[in-house]
Amino acid sequence: MFIKRSALKIAGQSPGTLMYVGEEKAEKVKIQIIDYNGSDLAEKEVGTIKDCLPFKTSDSVTWINVTGIHDLRIIEDLGSQLNLHPLLLEDVANTEQRPKMDDYEDYLFIVLKMLYTEKNSRRIQHEQLSLILMPGVVLSLQEFEEDVFDPVRERIRKGKGHIRTKGADYLMYALIDTIVDHYFHLFEEIGEQVEILQEEVITDPQPKTLHQIQNLKREMIFLRKSVWPLREIISALVRGDYSLIHEDVILYLRDVYDHTIQVIDTVETYRDMLSGMLDIYLSSVSNKMNEVMKVLTIIATIFIPLTFLAGIYGMNFKYMPELELKWAYPILWIIMISVFGFMLIYFKRKKWL
Amino acid sequence: MFIKRSALKIAGQSPGTLMYVGEEKAEKVKIQIIDYNGSDLAEKEVGTIKDCLPFKTSDSVTWINVTGIHDLRIIEDLGSQLNLHPLLLEDVANTEQRPKMDDYEDYLFIVLKMLYTEKNSRRIQHEQLSLILMPGVVLSLQEFEEDVFDPVRERIRKGKGHIRTKGADYLMYALIDTIVDHYFHLFEEIGEQVEILQEEVITDPQPKTLHQIQNLKREMIFLRKSVWPLREIISALVRGDYSLIHEDVILYLRDVYDHTIQVIDTVETYRDMLSGMLDIYLSSVSNKMNEVMKVLTIIATIFIPLTFLAGIYGMNFKYMPELELKWAYPILWIIMISVFGFMLIYFKRKKWL
Amino acid sequence: MFIKRSALKIAGQSPGTLMYVGEEKAEKVKIQIIDYNGSDLAEKEVGTIKDCLPFKTSDSVTWINVTGIHDLRIIEDLGSQLNLHPLLLEDVANTEQRPKMDDYEDYLFIVLKMLYTEKNSRRIQHEQLSLILMPGVVLSLQEFEEDVFDPVRERIRKGKGHIRTKGADYLMYALIDTIVDHYFHLFEEIGEQVEILQEEVITDPQPKTLHQIQNLKREMIFLRKSVWPLREIISALVRGDYSLIHEDVILYLRDVYDHTIQVIDTVETYRDMLSGMLDIYLSSVSNKMNEVMKVLTIIATIFIPLTFLAGIYGMNFKYMPELELKWAYPILWIIMISVFGFMLIYFKRKKWL
Amino acid sequence: MFIKRSALKIAGQSPGTLMYVGEEKAEKVKIQIIDYNGSDLAEKEVGTIKDCLPFKTSDSVTWINVTGIHDLRIIEDLGSQLNLHPLLLEDVANTEQRPKMDDYEDYLFIVLKMLYTEKNSRRIQHEQLSLILMPGVVLSLQEFEEDVFDPVRERIRKGKGHIRTKGADYLMYALIDTIVDHYFHLFEEIGEQVEILQEEVITDPQPKTLHQIQNLKREMIFLRKSVWPLREIISALVRGDYSLIHEDVILYLRDVYDHTIQVIDTVETYRDMLSGMLDIYLSSVSNKMNEVMKVLTIIATIFIPLTFLAGIYGMNFKYMPELELKWAYPILWIIMISVFGFMLIYFKRKKWL
Amino acid sequence: MFIKRSALKIAGQSPGTLMYVGEEKAEKVKIQIIDYNGSDLAEKEVGTIKDCLPFKTSDSVTWINVTGIHDLRIIEDLGSQLNLHPLLLEDVANTEQRPKMDDYEDYLFIVLKMLYTEKNSRRIQHEQLSLILMPGVVLSLQEFEEDVFDPVRERIRKGKGHIRTKGADYLMYALIDTIVDHYFHLFEEIGEQVEILQEEVITDPQPKTLHQIQNLKREMIFLRKSVWPLREIISALVRGDYSLIHEDVILYLRDVYDHTIQVIDTVETYRDMLSGMLDIYLSSVSNKMNEVMKVLTIIATIFIPLTFLAGIYGMNFKYMPELELKWAYPILWIIMISVFGFMLIYFKRKKWL
Repeated sequence: MFIKRSALKIAGQSPGTLMYVGEEKAEKVKIQIIDYNGSDLAEKEVGTIKDCLPFKTSDSVTWINVTGIHDLRIIEDLGSQLNLHPLLLEDVANTEQRPKMDDYEDYLFIVLKMLYTEKNSRRIQHEQLSLILMPGVVLSLQEFEEDVFDPVRERIRKGKGHIRTKGADYLMYALIDTIVDHYFHLFEEIGEQVEILQEEVITDPQPKTLHQIQNLKREMIFLRKSVWPLREIISALVRGDYSLIHEDVILYLRDVYDHTIQVIDTVETYRDMLSGMLDIYLSSVSNKMNEVMKVLTIIATIFIPLTFLAGIYGMNFKYMPELELKWAYPILWIIMISVFGFMLIYFKRKKWL
Repeated sequence: MFIKRSALKIAGQSPGTLMYVGEEKAEKVKIQIIDYNGSDLAEKEVGTIKDCLPFKTSDSVTWINVTGIHDLRIIEDLGSQLNLHPLLLEDVANTEQRPKMDDYEDYLFIVLKMLYTEKNSRRIQHEQLSLILMPGVVLSLQEFEEDVFDPVRERIRKGKGHIRTKGADYLMYALIDTIVDHYFHLFEEIGEQVEILQEEVITDPQPKTLHQIQNLKREMIFLRKSVWPLREIISALVRGDYSLIHEDVILYLRDVYDHTIQVIDTVETYRDMLSGMLDIYLSSVSNKMNEVMKVLTIIATIFIPLTFLAGIYGMNFKYMPELELKWAYPILWIIMISVFGFMLIYFKRKKWL
Repeated sequence: MFIKRSALKIAGQSPGTLMYVGEEKAEKVKIQIIDYNGSDLAEKEVGTIKDCLPFKTSDSVTWINVTGIHDLRIIEDLGSQLNLHPLLLEDVANTEQRPKMDDYEDYLFIVLKMLYTEKNSRRIQHEQLSLILMPGVVLSLQEFEEDVFDPVRERIRKGKGHIRTKGADYLMYALIDTIVDHYFHLFEEIGEQVEILQEEVITDPQPKTLHQIQNLKREMIFLRKSVWPLREIISALVRGDYSLIHEDVILYLRDVYDHTIQVIDTVETYRDMLSGMLDIYLSSVSNKMNEVMKVLTIIATIFIPLTFLAGIYGMNFKYMPELELKWAYPILWIIMISVFGFMLIYFKRKKWL
Repeated sequence: MFIKRSALKIAGQSPGTLMYVGEEKAEKVKIQIIDYNGSDLAEKEVGTIKDCLPFKTSDSVTWINVTGIHDLRIIEDLGSQLNLHPLLLEDVANTEQRPKMDDYEDYLFIVLKMLYTEKNSRRIQHEQLSLILMPGVVLSLQEFEEDVFDPVRERIRKGKGHIRTKGADYLMYALIDTIVDHYFHLFEEIGEQVEILQEEVITDPQPKTLHQIQNLKREMIFLRKSVWPLREIISALVRGDYSLIHEDVILYLRDVYDHTIQVIDTVETYRDMLSGMLDIYLSSVSNKMNEVMKVLTIIATIFIPLTFLAGIYGMNFKYMPELELKWAYPILWIIMISVFGFMLIYFKRKKWL
Repeated sequence: MFIKRSALKIAGQSPGTLMYVGEEKAEKVKIQIIDYNGSDLAEKEVGTIKDCLPFKTSDSVTWINVTGIHDLRIIEDLGSQLNLHPLLLEDVANTEQRPKMDDYEDYLFIVLKMLYTEKNSRRIQHEQLSLILMPGVVLSLQEFEEDVFDPVRERIRKGKGHIRTKGADYLMYALIDTIVDHYFHLFEEIGEQVEILQEEVITDPQPKTLHQIQNLKREMIFLRKSVWPLREIISALVRGDYSLIHEDVILYLRDVYDHTIQVIDTVETYRDMLSGMLDIYLSSVSNKMNEVMKVLTIIATIFIPLTFLAGIYGMNFKYMPELELKWAYPILWIIMISVFGFMLIYFKRKKWL
């Protein structure tokens, strides 16, 4: 579950051997190009990587978005046309990567995780997004067709914000920013689940509840594993040792950095809350047991002595003077009711009732 | 609860897009200016940011306090008049920020949290305070009208302490110092709640008590998230890499730093105490169960054998020689009382009574 | 309890505002001077700080010990006569300081905690000691009259050890060393309490025991908060960046450093032991419950079936052939005793008896 | 188990004393040489180390693989022929080493752990692999004959990938990469065990299950001890302070580094999952106890009062008017059935049924 | 126990005051000298430190071993003859030192702990060993007569290994190495205890078992306190900032460093295992309680309803038609046996039997 069987396909292979390990989601490979500068904008969908090359050498910013990376020929083609390192291509295809950044001097390579919850099971799913930043070019590679980048496309088309006046580094920032912003949507959903659990654990704790708490806890561990490396990546970008990223974009990246910190804070907070719930669950269970015990004890403590008394006068001794007395029976009832009453008062005082 | 829905409004927006995410508390925007030096003092309430500009260029220290940041036109105006970075303006408006400091070279930008407990629910609330330090100017921005800075205003008006003889950096220090000092008030209230809980958990532990412990624990997590970044901010200021802050003010900031350390220590101490309480709670519950069990055991252990004896002589066998004996009944009573007494002594020795 | 109400008096005040926050313990301010070099020794008790000045400028080492810092006029006087920073004076008066060291270039300022257990309650108490090291002068300030420095005074008077041949930095070392050595006395007392608890938790665990464990644990947290900063202070001194402290004294400070490490080790060890006790306590409680359950089960399991048998022959059916048999009653007794014996053997084998 | 008795054989010995501490697995020592460059390839099995020397001095890359290190003469011979440090030889023979890297200037020495699960017991076993990197030569030493390096051999023979065009450092990288890739196979097996346990702990928790959880947890501790030092080793190699490793191979080592991080992440995830299972186990046990208690309480609470009623009318008082009434017996049955029904409703409402 | 009363004797004393704080074990002081170089060897037992001086100045390596450090005159003599710092002498005599290294420029001073288990109580005991490394001289000081250095002496006498050809730094390494190797013997004994406990905790958990687990855990804490500083010491030596230690010996010290890491790993592993045992213990206890409860519940649930039935027909109502029926009694028996059987099947299905 955490290490997919598919990840094992590549073990023992020569490094740089391309092998796609995820599910195939996109039906067809799609290469989408947006080329823009302050004044002009061109959008085009091309068939091969080769068609992108004219855009690459232009002065304008070029965003090449490749969907459907299970087609390894495209990736190989990409490698040879753009002169990318084989290890990079392997990382693009191996969608079980940990988020990471590699600096290949001529270009920066960043692997991110796009997180979302599955509609039915409410489990957290992830898709891998690879970003390659070259001078004047941003390459984004992913398997899934529907992405979250439409608002960015809109901003480019309408020239909203600074995006049209800035370089490729700003475009990369905008993409990362969109991914991180999307994490907050995820948290809203998780937050709802956490609040529902929190009520359930107090009002009606079931073994199922415990199970759900454990599941969410495990998902928090998973989230953490995705977000911590992201923090490191952006922190390295902010430190500013990369010539491809300009001074003024670092300011914006610092803003994303603050957001990742906030995401990490939230993950930690949820983990703490879920741990607290476990304590409440266990104490709820033991409270319920306590209550069961009290009922048993009250009933047994009241009736066992009374049954004893009844047993006494059920004995068949020849000489039992009480049996002959006329008022013995009603007197015994009075005694029994008194014992009963005394017990009730005792339990009231013990706060068992 | 930890990520407000409102925080999501800004996801997907172009960075630098202004959007106010908190509740609107102030009825009207209010811009208050205090301009002073060693000898002179001017106080004024102005309508627009433009009216502040003359004060800004003067030699004296100028404190511009803006209340009611939900009016985004004012913030935009501020940005253009004072030439502030759009990301800074976005941070001012987004009141769900984590405490942080950004160095924009010409000015320092600090986000702080003002913490207080709500009157009715006793829950911890927070308001965001943004401070911008420029040469000779301190800008403070907040939503809530009533602030805690009145003692600082008094000190400026009456020329008490060093405040009139020092620069804008000292004014900023004085504002931060007031905020941190205010945290101690908060702790006094929390301390009272902790002490009440501590008694309750020993004398009368209820599921409700556990719930309150968990709530306080969660609030401690929240406090920690607010105070740790503050510590980092002040630590960075003390390290003295900012030309806007002079040598002699760093000494004072070191003092604030000591206070934040003390605040953190206290948060950690309360967390430890609350964890300890959880242990006491669980052991109290199991002690109570133990007590219930003892009562049941004592009653059952005494009366079950006696009831058995009574049952024996309730049998209808034709040939039961004891039944015919004259002294059998009183002798049985003596036996039963002896068993009863023996049991009592046994339980006494076991310390169950 | 951790943040005394008195600590709040200073919130909102101008920094450098003197305010004494502790209890007044000394009846009268006392200024005691010991001035010595290798050959000469002078002791004097003076009325005002001014009287100390001649000693300060002499070549010899001067130790000025001020008792009764609640008298703020003395502290103010001190500040103006010796030209001390107002923040330092505030720290001297505010006896709720965290141990710390501030370097004011011309002098070093160290705040320490003197720890001792209160006679009656056995709770740990602390008193603040402020040390100021200037060239040739050590100033020690405290509220409580009786201090632990008499052995140091004796060593100076009798010229024992190196103390008379060394400078003011050695004197400061000697004072810190005495404080740290005193912590070991405290640990002896705590160690006794821990050992008593350790026996109690095994032989006779009571809710009270748990409470004492928690109290000691809390005191360990408190001790930790006092000792860790001390370690940092001495570590900074040993690193040797202070011109007021000479090479040869650093060797001695390294020795004190080793002692503080040992103190911290001991605190951590006690914390671990107390955590272990909590586990033993909880398991003792559940063992006792187990024992109670066993007694109940043994009694109930033996007598409930027997009572059933007696009940059978207490029935009033007209046609119950056993009732008429002569040997039925003794045979039933034999059966009952067999059941009883079988049960005993069963419980023996289960190791419940 | 963690420190094998055999590890003690070497205590007190002169350092550099050779002593093999593992099991003897290989029947005979085997020295296998693969010598290759871009164009040529030679494979040979030789009898003595001396026979390797001609290959060593050649320009081509030489891989010397020694199997069966229990034969100490071979190791000694190796030391004298290749001029290796006695401590290195001792480390090769002592198969209980922690993974580590030593830089002997002329050559790099790396100790790795090959991990696999034993067929029958499913316990994790480990074998030690020693790698020595010299200019143009990689020496690999191990006890077990069957190794995991066959894919590497194939790549060399078939000239697949870069391996034939690169130097000895790339060969060493390829060997380490294969080892780390193999860890993922191990995780697949562990992952299956974890998933089986996870189901078992919910559906049918047995003391045996707890035991298995503890065993896996211990194995995770062991794995961690093997993988963490590996991470440090590769991290040191990546930092690039070793002249024997060229710039371009560092890129590949960075890839291995990412894999070790992923391995560590997985180990930590499994540890967290196993801790979570322990909580579920304990809560399952207490849920089962709760259920047992409920059955007891329901039965006892229903029948004890009814038995009391029956006991009442089993008494032999002379004057009990109810006994004479014709409808008394059926009325009592109605009362009893009502009590029974009332109890059932009560338990339904309490959700005990 | 952790801070011996004797450690307090030195509090308040002038630093450098000699005071022996341990038990006196050696009957008489013994000064043993071994002086050697590649060709010659001299062994001698001398009466006073003065007799050692000629050996010190020779070119050969001199090992001076002093047994019985409770004789403070010898230590004082040592100090004056060899010109050692008073703080060093104090540390030699104070046998409650934490392991540490002090660099006195002309000589290195190392304090180590020799660990062993006491024969009868199996508790871990420790003895302090002080090592002083000067040019050409190693001084070892200890209280206990029997030491673990005989193998080293043999190696010197027989010229085995490198020891005769290397300097005093190698001798010091050999002594430290012997001490660390000895820790593994200790672990073998502890390992056995751990394995015995591990079986006991599953098969027959007793409160005593818990106690032993806690004891071992405490001893692990103690071991940790001894080994961690040792690691730091050797790490500092390996870093190589000491002119007394030559390049080639650092290689050997790195080997000892690896061993200390292994020792620390083992301590941590045992701690984890002991923590795991605590969980198993607690779950064993609650499993046993569960079993007790099941027995009680089975017996009570079967017989309470049957007893009720018997009670019904023990009633004395005049009109109970069943009592008159001939087959009523055997029918009742059939009903009772059916109830009994039904119950058994129910419990079987619930897996309680």
